[in-house]
Amino acid sequence: MREFLLKSGGRTGDFSLNDLPGAGRMDIACRCITACLWLSDELRKDSILHLFLEGPPAPPKLLSFNPLKLKRFYPDERNVASHIRLALLGKPQPGISLKTISFKDFLEEQRKQKQIIILDSKGKDIRKIEISDNVLFILGDNRGIGEDIEGEKVSVGKKVYLSSQVISIIQNELDRREEQWQD
Amino acid sequence: MREFLLKSGGRTGDFSLNDLPGAGRMDIACRCITACLWLSDELRKDSILHLFLEGPPAPPKLLSFNPLKLKRFYPDERNVASHIRLALLGKPQPGISLKTISFKDFLEEQRKQKQIIILDSKGKDIRKIEISDNVLFILGDNRGIGEDIEGEKVSVGKKVYLSSQVISIIQNELDRREEQWQD
Repeated sequence: MREFLLKSGGRTGDFSLNDLPGAGRMDIACRCITACLWLSDELRKDSILHLFLEGPPAPPKLLSFNPLKLKRFYPDERNVASHIRLALLGKPQPGISLKTISFKDFLEEQRKQKQIIILDSKGKDIRKIEISDNVLFILGDNRGIGEDIEGEKVSVGKKVYLSSQVISIIQNELDRREEQWQD
Repeated sequence: MREFLLKSGGRTGDFSLNDLPGAGRMDIACRCITACLWLSDELRKDSILHLFLEGPPAPPKLLSFNPLKLKRFYPDERNVASHIRLALLGKPQPGISLKTISFKDFLEEQRKQKQIIILDSKGKDIRKIEISDNVLFILGDNRGIGEDIEGEKVSVGKKVYLSSQVISIIQNELDRREEQWQD
């Protein structure tokens, strides 16, 4: 399973669907979820996205999205945000789980089973590294990751991209490898 | 200059910012514009996006976004949509132009100066083709392109991706070539 974690400054309480940027750049989180979990006409069956929310009023919160179980879930930011909001209000919809866990504890748990890759524009070229079938990619939002994490630093290019663009590029690279389309 | 054209079923009149999917999947158009024109902290200086709108009530309309001149332009869908809506209501903001032109006429005009690449999941691998500095990529939204266009068919992978994901992947491929990061 491919897993992605976005460290986000998004709010951990109620917010307005009419102002996602004002909710700790929740728009970034929504675009990342769409970039990670969707293909053209269907949700992916091979990926999970973890949204680690560090904004007020009740951080930290970890929301995990499993596309195998999601219902009435669409790719537009407002729909994705409505699912995030419901989960934060204590009414998580199918396929979405809510946990209160520190980043450190979550990471330690993941480290036992997964290759940890940290996205960093100065890291190694993603096209040239080995990637396990069991992998967790860690990205930051507009604030960056904000702490030093032990793991392999990997880059998708010299430019610094939007987190959602980075996820699209990674998913494509992994798809190409699985499809042996590269050579 | 890199140029992209999205053939969209988006509305060509007023629409609600609270229901972008209901406005002819205007959410897709917004995500494509963000994927095309943004880097992490700044607008690109090397790309233009053309949004060709074919939805009611007054098609066709061609909206062109030039990031060198855009003002108060942000990456969230609602902000991008607010710029599209203002342009359609006859109040285009800086960096956005509105034209009434047929797709055929626009394409003929472009063909004189540019390499035309049509995105098609069955096309040639984008990593293996020559791409000119003067290129126009043509993509469809959820409806596809909907007509047969003369030009080179190019693919980013076997899977069919969201149009915004495809644009992110292409921009990255072009960046890598410019940066000579590949070898």
